[in-house]
Amino acid sequence: MTKTSDIFVTVDIVIFTLRDGDLQVLLVKRKTPPFEGRWAIPGGFVQHDESLEDAAARVLFDEAGVRGVHIEQLYTFGRVDRDPRGRMVTVAYFALVPAPLALHAGSSTSDAQWQSVYNLPEMAFDHAEIVHYALKRLRYKLEYTAVGFQLLPKTFTLSQLQKAYETVLGERLDKRNFRRRILQAQVIEETGEMQSGEGRPAKLYRYRADAVAEVKARRLFP
Amino acid sequence: MTKTSDIFVTVDIVIFTLRDGDLQVLLVKRKTPPFEGRWAIPGGFVQHDESLEDAAARVLFDEAGVRGVHIEQLYTFGRVDRDPRGRMVTVAYFALVPAPLALHAGSSTSDAQWQSVYNLPEMAFDHAEIVHYALKRLRYKLEYTAVGFQLLPKTFTLSQLQKAYETVLGERLDKRNFRRRILQAQVIEETGEMQSGEGRPAKLYRYRADAVAEVKARRLFP
Repeated sequence: MTKTSDIFVTVDIVIFTLRDGDLQVLLVKRKTPPFEGRWAIPGGFVQHDESLEDAAARVLFDEAGVRGVHIEQLYTFGRVDRDPRGRMVTVAYFALVPAPLALHAGSSTSDAQWQSVYNLPEMAFDHAEIVHYALKRLRYKLEYTAVGFQLLPKTFTLSQLQKAYETVLGERLDKRNFRRRILQAQVIEETGEMQSGEGRPAKLYRYRADAVAEVKARRLFP
Repeated sequence: MTKTSDIFVTVDIVIFTLRDGDLQVLLVKRKTPPFEGRWAIPGGFVQHDESLEDAAARVLFDEAGVRGVHIEQLYTFGRVDRDPRGRMVTVAYFALVPAPLALHAGSSTSDAQWQSVYNLPEMAFDHAEIVHYALKRLRYKLEYTAVGFQLLPKTFTLSQLQKAYETVLGERLDKRNFRRRILQAQVIEETGEMQSGEGRPAKLYRYRADAVAEVKARRLFP
């Protein structure tokens, strides 16, 4: 076989957070052609001696300043003409960053900004398509698994949880219906603490460590 | 940027079929090093001018002789040392081939063979890992979506359907429980025809064209 390839491999990461009551992604402004001045999701070339996961973790740390958060492979995009510089295949990942972390993220990168997924700027490459694919996956995960809790603080009220679901799903949910179904699904439990603030105090919940197993129990067959 | 890359991109395809009451994958015996003489799943280098999907479809047709079947991207595997020849990143796909097609598949490729996923030979590269990952995805899809029906003939009895589920899931299912749940899930409907054979005639079913939507209705929300 030949010793060089004419296809390049990159990783690109859709980093989601809940911030200011909005679902946001971290975008970076491109300083060089192609698509100079356009916004892109953070990414980079996979180095010869690093695995795809290592490359994704490196980009996540370099661009968002975070480690140890939920990250998973999303999909690999390889349309022939997706990059004018040459043939680039990109392995896309998606990461969920809890809100408190997100406030510090990107501070060292002057050209990085959290932006609403509901109001994306014109983007470089096929990155708009990648973000939309990631949003679809995130919504699916929120509905079928407990992974969405990675976006939340460790404890939360039912109102805060409903607001988070509504923000990610992009739709209003009926309050009574939401509470009944989330409690039925047995993915959260009471902490025994209350949150006081405006109005009457509200029970604080946390998600159950075994929540993923519980959600699996909703399968058609055991 | 440099004009050549030191990472190669391949596609590899896990092709599943139900055959002789068994869940089988198409394997190809390698004729050249590395792993000469070992079994591998069909694969090939992505060409400069073809998309990943086109490359997967090409390999599927060349190796299994089929087109127009269910094929989807599975996962991209990129461990640094997964190929002794150099750095190879492979975009894995999985395909479901209905039983009747499978009987003709691979006939033009003397070194291709259907083999049981439950009794795999020692395999080349990380292909055993890829097949196991694909099996996990297939089982998940069978439980949550209607995609498993791609493995079945157009019409089937409940006994045949249960046997297919048992073969893919690798476990026995309770007959009454299975019938109740599959009918409740509203993914199949009666054809109005009966199948006669040994024992008393049995109703023939087909899956509903809108079955995927029905399965989605089992979500936690809305």
